[in-house]
Amino acid sequence: MTVGIIMGSQSDWPTMTHAAAMLDHFAIPYETRIVSAHRTPQLLADYAQQAAERGIKVIIAGAGGAAHLPGMTAAHTSLPVLGVPVQSKALKGMDSLLSIAQMPKGVAVGTLAIGDAGAANAGLLAAQILATADPDLMTKVDAFRQVQTEAVLAQPNPQG
Amino acid sequence: MTVGIIMGSQSDWPTMTHAAAMLDHFAIPYETRIVSAHRTPQLLADYAQQAAERGIKVIIAGAGGAAHLPGMTAAHTSLPVLGVPVQSKALKGMDSLLSIAQMPKGVAVGTLAIGDAGAANAGLLAAQILATADPDLMTKVDAFRQVQTEAVLAQPNPQG
Amino acid sequence: MTVGIIMGSQSDWPTMTHAAAMLDHFAIPYETRIVSAHRTPQLLADYAQQAAERGIKVIIAGAGGAAHLPGMTAAHTSLPVLGVPVQSKALKGMDSLLSIAQMPKGVAVGTLAIGDAGAANAGLLAAQILATADPDLMTKVDAFRQVQTEAVLAQPNPQG
Amino acid sequence: MTVGIIMGSQSDWPTMTHAAAMLDHFAIPYETRIVSAHRTPQLLADYAQQAAERGIKVIIAGAGGAAHLPGMTAAHTSLPVLGVPVQSKALKGMDSLLSIAQMPKGVAVGTLAIGDAGAANAGLLAAQILATADPDLMTKVDAFRQVQTEAVLAQPNPQG
Amino acid sequence: MTVGIIMGSQSDWPTMTHAAAMLDHFAIPYETRIVSAHRTPQLLADYAQQAAERGIKVIIAGAGGAAHLPGMTAAHTSLPVLGVPVQSKALKGMDSLLSIAQMPKGVAVGTLAIGDAGAANAGLLAAQILATADPDLMTKVDAFRQVQTEAVLAQPNPQG
Amino acid sequence: MTVGIIMGSQSDWPTMTHAAAMLDHFAIPYETRIVSAHRTPQLLADYAQQAAERGIKVIIAGAGGAAHLPGMTAAHTSLPVLGVPVQSKALKGMDSLLSIAQMPKGVAVGTLAIGDAGAANAGLLAAQILATADPDLMTKVDAFRQVQTEAVLAQPNPQG
Amino acid sequence: MTVGIIMGSQSDWPTMTHAAAMLDHFAIPYETRIVSAHRTPQLLADYAQQAAERGIKVIIAGAGGAAHLPGMTAAHTSLPVLGVPVQSKALKGMDSLLSIAQMPKGVAVGTLAIGDAGAANAGLLAAQILATADPDLMTKVDAFRQVQTEAVLAQPNPQG
Amino acid sequence: MTVGIIMGSQSDWPTMTHAAAMLDHFAIPYETRIVSAHRTPQLLADYAQQAAERGIKVIIAGAGGAAHLPGMTAAHTSLPVLGVPVQSKALKGMDSLLSIAQMPKGVAVGTLAIGDAGAANAGLLAAQILATADPDLMTKVDAFRQVQTEAVLAQPNPQG
Repeated sequence: MTVGIIMGSQSDWPTMTHAAAMLDHFAIPYETRIVSAHRTPQLLADYAQQAAERGIKVIIAGAGGAAHLPGMTAAHTSLPVLGVPVQSKALKGMDSLLSIAQMPKGVAVGTLAIGDAGAANAGLLAAQILATADPDLMTKVDAFRQVQTEAVLAQPNPQG
Repeated sequence: MTVGIIMGSQSDWPTMTHAAAMLDHFAIPYETRIVSAHRTPQLLADYAQQAAERGIKVIIAGAGGAAHLPGMTAAHTSLPVLGVPVQSKALKGMDSLLSIAQMPKGVAVGTLAIGDAGAANAGLLAAQILATADPDLMTKVDAFRQVQTEAVLAQPNPQG
Repeated sequence: MTVGIIMGSQSDWPTMTHAAAMLDHFAIPYETRIVSAHRTPQLLADYAQQAAERGIKVIIAGAGGAAHLPGMTAAHTSLPVLGVPVQSKALKGMDSLLSIAQMPKGVAVGTLAIGDAGAANAGLLAAQILATADPDLMTKVDAFRQVQTEAVLAQPNPQG
Repeated sequence: MTVGIIMGSQSDWPTMTHAAAMLDHFAIPYETRIVSAHRTPQLLADYAQQAAERGIKVIIAGAGGAAHLPGMTAAHTSLPVLGVPVQSKALKGMDSLLSIAQMPKGVAVGTLAIGDAGAANAGLLAAQILATADPDLMTKVDAFRQVQTEAVLAQPNPQG
Repeated sequence: MTVGIIMGSQSDWPTMTHAAAMLDHFAIPYETRIVSAHRTPQLLADYAQQAAERGIKVIIAGAGGAAHLPGMTAAHTSLPVLGVPVQSKALKGMDSLLSIAQMPKGVAVGTLAIGDAGAANAGLLAAQILATADPDLMTKVDAFRQVQTEAVLAQPNPQG
Repeated sequence: MTVGIIMGSQSDWPTMTHAAAMLDHFAIPYETRIVSAHRTPQLLADYAQQAAERGIKVIIAGAGGAAHLPGMTAAHTSLPVLGVPVQSKALKGMDSLLSIAQMPKGVAVGTLAIGDAGAANAGLLAAQILATADPDLMTKVDAFRQVQTEAVLAQPNPQG
Repeated sequence: MTVGIIMGSQSDWPTMTHAAAMLDHFAIPYETRIVSAHRTPQLLADYAQQAAERGIKVIIAGAGGAAHLPGMTAAHTSLPVLGVPVQSKALKGMDSLLSIAQMPKGVAVGTLAIGDAGAANAGLLAAQILATADPDLMTKVDAFRQVQTEAVLAQPNPQG
Repeated sequence: MTVGIIMGSQSDWPTMTHAAAMLDHFAIPYETRIVSAHRTPQLLADYAQQAAERGIKVIIAGAGGAAHLPGMTAAHTSLPVLGVPVQSKALKGMDSLLSIAQMPKGVAVGTLAIGDAGAANAGLLAAQILATADPDLMTKVDAFRQVQTEAVLAQPNPQG
């Protein structure tokens, strides 16, 4: 397993599945786990502390509301941690975004956009991180970006 | 020690000292500790897990920004945890408030106001909580409230 | 009755029922009342002032919009008051949250999250408060937290 | 006394003095009082309930943060109540504004702008309200507006 | 006509009808008009300038988004103007609220809550304003408030 | 005069002077006026209605808080109107921005950034608008942009 | 082609079609293109740089979320650029609005309202800009505004 | 050079110097450049497109307001891009944060906190990214984190 995708509850999976799909696209091996910062803090500590020795290179953590999972994961590992703010019911993810992004000096989380796009981009950024040491993967990322560009170029002009 | 006052860094003390002052007023024994959710997560876990057996009844936790200390403390103890959003530099404590208040179902933090008033009220609410089983303390709380009321009543009418 | 659950109108009950359900779980006796800060201020004053002598130990108050019920209840009693910001129609509970949390020094409300999770956690925090003087109840809270942890641990890994 | 100006604490007077100054301009008799919704709720109830019989026609209430004074005053009287959101330290009066403006159906507060301008306009709106039954006062309000218009017209064009 | 209810477009009527209903309750004569600050500025100026001589005592203006109608109406009349922030599509009325409430010193608008409750309360506050010079109407307002209080008191306690 | 720069009060001039400076740079003739939407609505109507026949091509309007000047100017003219949100004291220009930008369909304001940068860019955008029919001016705008680009390119790399 | 309407993706067309409809109303020739700042940055640069020589006079750019299209288009051309904040899923266009409006000094975007109204007004403002050098078009704009005014005046008074 | 630190203007350097200091701590070679998305878009494109072949592994981009630099850099490279929201004058970096974080699917930016802490953490996260393929650097990161933890543990308990 190269990437660990963790999330606070099963209800975050419809969002986080977009991170998994992106990793699938790049054929990067990953695992998915329910790890709750608040309900299973020991599991979180164990998971984060053991991730490096288990071969994990990047951790993607998604959570909503008072979203402590990404930051607390980062507190327990030196691996890069990417945080996905899941859209919350009342405040639409603004609480999730601020809870993940506003980390103090010394413990970092790379924060993505709120919701599905952010989850997909967490998968993409994980691929880009791994690609810094894997030229073949970098070629795949280049190709993904190229295909994406061509898809936009191929779109017809909108008309009424 | 009956109350534990913890905070993420020494820079939170000018805010959290107002909690201590309130507990001093009620002669409630307390301790103060620097416990950082992100930089000392194991200390946080240990502190929170051992608090009850050490005789702590209520924990007051203050933090700013992506303020994870109150929520993660609550994750490691069944004691009531009160959270104080410390005013942050850029977002003025709105990030702190949302990071503390918006906890998911199953792990609770009683959140107070941003800044000094919130810290003082955390001390007061701790006293009120302890007073539910301590009639003498409840009398003191009643007296505090009464003195406070009289202080307002004694104020002269404002004039230019 | 050990806990009083009050709310501004019948329309808050679908939210506040989660506080009641949590207290039911812990077999803590409670009562529910419609008490409007704005439409029945005298009832609010009477309720809050008489709560302690009626044996109430903790008051849970839920309200939305310009949510004055929790703060005004706290103004009339020395009992701990927990505030639940009910999700409002236009501003999604941001107004409720600020109206409840931003209390001035000297009168405290322990504020929970916006909506259902906050209501459930108000019930849980009430149990935790009562448990500071009731070892059997503390054991129940510990057990609740343990069951909750195990429920997360038992979840299968998400997959597409 | 025709207008009552009340505020939560002496620290609100530098803001609320602008309401008094405007009433002075119109020679409308007024009184000023420190009335705290949270620290002197009984005084608030008494003040609001007795205001009409004491000859008060309009009440201006200023408060900051979880600003409950205007709404609770309105809860205890049928007189028109005007609310002034005092600028708060952390959230700059956004909390005050929402706590005052977002009243539920059935109890109304006419809310003015945050801070000094809002206080001055509360005095002006009180004058306009009284003027609906006082043609001489309406003439004065017209004149005030006219003078104000002329003052703008008399300003030189800005230049560098 | 004693009260003028104006609004920027027909689409505001489902909100503003609550103001009309409240005035109907008090048997206060009123008129309703579509007056757009931006599309019919001359009509706005004429309406506001002629309102007093036509016998209007209070103007209620509702608008959404960059809601200029209440403030510009106030600019053209010395009558008291009450503003209702209509809930906007994207920003849910936060733009409407700020556009109406944050008036500069010298031209006042009494702002109510966003949406239906605010519209109803604009009608109520208009009644309260008129009642300052009409003891019979004040009695009706007192009765309205009393009935409302009793309606809350008569509600059964919520139960699951 | 080709451009009219108007603002609600003299206190807006330190912001709006940046619009004037930009027009000076392009040698575009302009005039400056204090025109208050709320205190001189008739002046506003006259100014906006007569601007075109006086040869004005673009109007730049700056205002803060409940900033109605740009939108109301647009209501009275078919000329393009550019709005500058002046930074307000309490809400830092967020109220100004929303009051100017959120115009309804049918009356348009081109809104710039809050504060000095927005004022300067209003001057620049006015120049760009005029340049659509003035090749010499377009050349000047191109040159301005080129100089600006070169100024960035000429900056040394930052070092500690 | 006189106006270029560009947007980040096909999903922005239901919004941006309102800009096209407005230009249709004025018989102003325009083109529509999918140009993504992030996925086709070279296309964006080419489009913006070549627009003037292709005869484009005004560019309308719509985008949502981290909406970089309008600002980056302005970075590559001296033509006036109008930005339309498309309503985003989580934050309802507040992110789009700030990303478009808060441009630094030296590169200007005229920002319209969030969503459909903003798109329509971008078309209208483009017409107004072109009309500064086209008296016939100015007459059409005047007529549009006049018809719009009359449509409001012709509306019946709302009634229940 | 392994890391490129770019920023929109010299005024961002007091913030971005914290990223440089962190890289200095880890003895990671880096370069600093002023690259403005809006004023030097071609430089931005060139810099981003050539970074990989010049040996850059990670790009750190800081910008404020309508902060397009990080996202546009990401649009031109497959390298991981980390974005630092610089605190803006009016909106305190909320605009910067949303402009950087809310990227659409397909082009990712790892966003850090607003201001100095975010810049320092961008340097740290860059080190963590590089360390995924550099065991010696990972040891250094572990040591940094350990020292940081010990520094917190060594702090005396706060006292009045």
